[in-house]
Amino acid sequence: MPVPTPYLRVDLERLRRNVRRAAEDAATARVRLRPHAKTHKSLDVARLQLASGAVGLTVATVGEAEVFMRNGCTDVLIAYPLWLDQDRALRLRDLADLGRVAFGVDSVEAAARAGRLLGGSGVEVLVEVDSGHHRTGVLPEDAGRVALAASRSGLPVRGVFTFPGHGYAPGEAAAAALAERTALRAAAASLTAAGVEVRLLSGGSTPTLSASLDDPDSIAGQPGAPERELRPGVYVFGDAQQWELGVVEPADVALTCVATVVSVREGHVVLDAGSKALGADRATWSTGFGRLLHDPDARVVQLSEHHAVVAWPEGGTARRPRLGELVEVVPNHVCAAVNLADHLWVQEAGGMRPWPVAARGANA
Amino acid sequence: MPVPTPYLRVDLERLRRNVRRAAEDAATARVRLRPHAKTHKSLDVARLQLASGAVGLTVATVGEAEVFMRNGCTDVLIAYPLWLDQDRALRLRDLADLGRVAFGVDSVEAAARAGRLLGGSGVEVLVEVDSGHHRTGVLPEDAGRVALAASRSGLPVRGVFTFPGHGYAPGEAAAAALAERTALRAAAASLTAAGVEVRLLSGGSTPTLSASLDDPDSIAGQPGAPERELRPGVYVFGDAQQWELGVVEPADVALTCVATVVSVREGHVVLDAGSKALGADRATWSTGFGRLLHDPDARVVQLSEHHAVVAWPEGGTARRPRLGELVEVVPNHVCAAVNLADHLWVQEAGGMRPWPVAARGANA
Repeated sequence: MPVPTPYLRVDLERLRRNVRRAAEDAATARVRLRPHAKTHKSLDVARLQLASGAVGLTVATVGEAEVFMRNGCTDVLIAYPLWLDQDRALRLRDLADLGRVAFGVDSVEAAARAGRLLGGSGVEVLVEVDSGHHRTGVLPEDAGRVALAASRSGLPVRGVFTFPGHGYAPGEAAAAALAERTALRAAAASLTAAGVEVRLLSGGSTPTLSASLDDPDSIAGQPGAPERELRPGVYVFGDAQQWELGVVEPADVALTCVATVVSVREGHVVLDAGSKALGADRATWSTGFGRLLHDPDARVVQLSEHHAVVAWPEGGTARRPRLGELVEVVPNHVCAAVNLADHLWVQEAGGMRPWPVAARGANA
Repeated sequence: MPVPTPYLRVDLERLRRNVRRAAEDAATARVRLRPHAKTHKSLDVARLQLASGAVGLTVATVGEAEVFMRNGCTDVLIAYPLWLDQDRALRLRDLADLGRVAFGVDSVEAAARAGRLLGGSGVEVLVEVDSGHHRTGVLPEDAGRVALAASRSGLPVRGVFTFPGHGYAPGEAAAAALAERTALRAAAASLTAAGVEVRLLSGGSTPTLSASLDDPDSIAGQPGAPERELRPGVYVFGDAQQWELGVVEPADVALTCVATVVSVREGHVVLDAGSKALGADRATWSTGFGRLLHDPDARVVQLSEHHAVVAWPEGGTARRPRLGELVEVVPNHVCAAVNLADHLWVQEAGGMRPWPVAARGANA
């Protein structure tokens, strides 16, 4: 029985290659990888990453941490400024029985509150620093103050982290990687000045990965230096955003949405993969709502819940897919597409095998 | 135990009122309602709609039809131009044992193919017509040709349908409703000319609902006239798009995403509801990625997977929510938000009750 379209297809060979390449590059730079599991939400992919030398996983929510820690991962960072209530604190305490857990704080209030609810649990915190994305995180010079509040309230402070999300724009990756390491070093100095030891500088994203590994002033791996850790997520699969940012080639894209052409007219074809399969993400610099893996001229120009309208530039000569034909769509943002599916489908010798999206919807 | 944020909260009183109002307005206009269940994907909401006189449900996929028909709904229209393979044809045959099923065709090829795979099953088709949205559907004057292909291949033709999606823009609803009825009447004439009887004219959407019910030339309900049916979906809950289109007032919005303020700085606050809870939909005319139910000045100005950055116009005097406070976010597009959740949470006397999102992810 064929898998009915639309479905997400994983190219296992490409996935393994993407995982291996990043692991090798990080090892060469003496940097630890803690891949962000929000991208794949899959125990199968997490196992590949951990087997390739990843130090642990990054997640965004307590719910994601629960899925991975209850299934064998013993070291998880929740790279998010949690605001704890009694219930979330209890859940974190339970996780601390399963392994090493840390999460983010970006205010004195959140740090002090977390200390009251979690003191003595073994759960650690990292101070989140704003390195230019201007979303969450404190200014580097304020990191010591937050770290001190955590430390005084009884919470072990592991170090500082940031997300260089401003690297998600054409030509901005190198500058964002530089801003990241500048901010992390300044934040570390702020902690040291406050009398809080810094054991870890954590950063990273897929667009900035290469620039971050290429730090000429790196002291990573030197005796006495804090650990340096990067948290890329999308690198395992790639997506149309990374393609358009020049971070991946189409030949690296390891996840596509297989869709059927259901309607054809003069100017376009319509696929049965809409925003409920691909996600509706579209950056200001994206050239469409998604692309076709095997046709670089094609663009998803209009997206509804169950319709992707695909068009081509005028005068193009590429063969248009016909009614009933299957095509592979590269989603703009693979994390969003994966979170909409119950399974990823992996081609194997004996047929298609489903990989459960174990942490799908684990938003809380 | 409180429900951890982010979660989707349903205001049952408002939901019931929205369902009742549409049912009464449709009855007055002698028009049948076949609400689109893609919005709620919920058996609980479907039961309210059917109890209020809805003639059946609309869905977008065979998978959604399966969920609703296996749970008591006996009349479903798949308002989508399916391209059938053996597997989908078998699934449709199984559904025909449970009740009345119809789906869309918008080409001679799809109609003929469906006839070969489904002839004698009792499954019916409607010809999809393009009334100006320019996505799927044939031109009205070509509808007879497609209907004839279906009919000749042994498929009963119920009539014609269209989706006036071009009504999803400020000030366009009345024109789109007019375009819809003009197109449906022209398509009906095309079927009649081809010798195919027209029993149903189906259209509708939430923005155009009021204008469609206000048709001065309506012959709905007159002896010998085809049935007139409308398929609104979003009306049950409302969302920020409908709010900004002027279709609903904030006091009508029956579904919100309850989120916690996790980070605060001078210019904005950050909530723990991101695109994985709200959906990333943003129309060109939307003023943000979502709004706060109780603060019309606030806008979600930046959205990541687990962060909604909320800001206010400069000089505004509204009180900003504080760290740890709960706020209610109105998603831009409620269909997308619902499809990301496993449950909707309904406040009842005894506490919060979960309603399963039974058809979540039923894309195929």
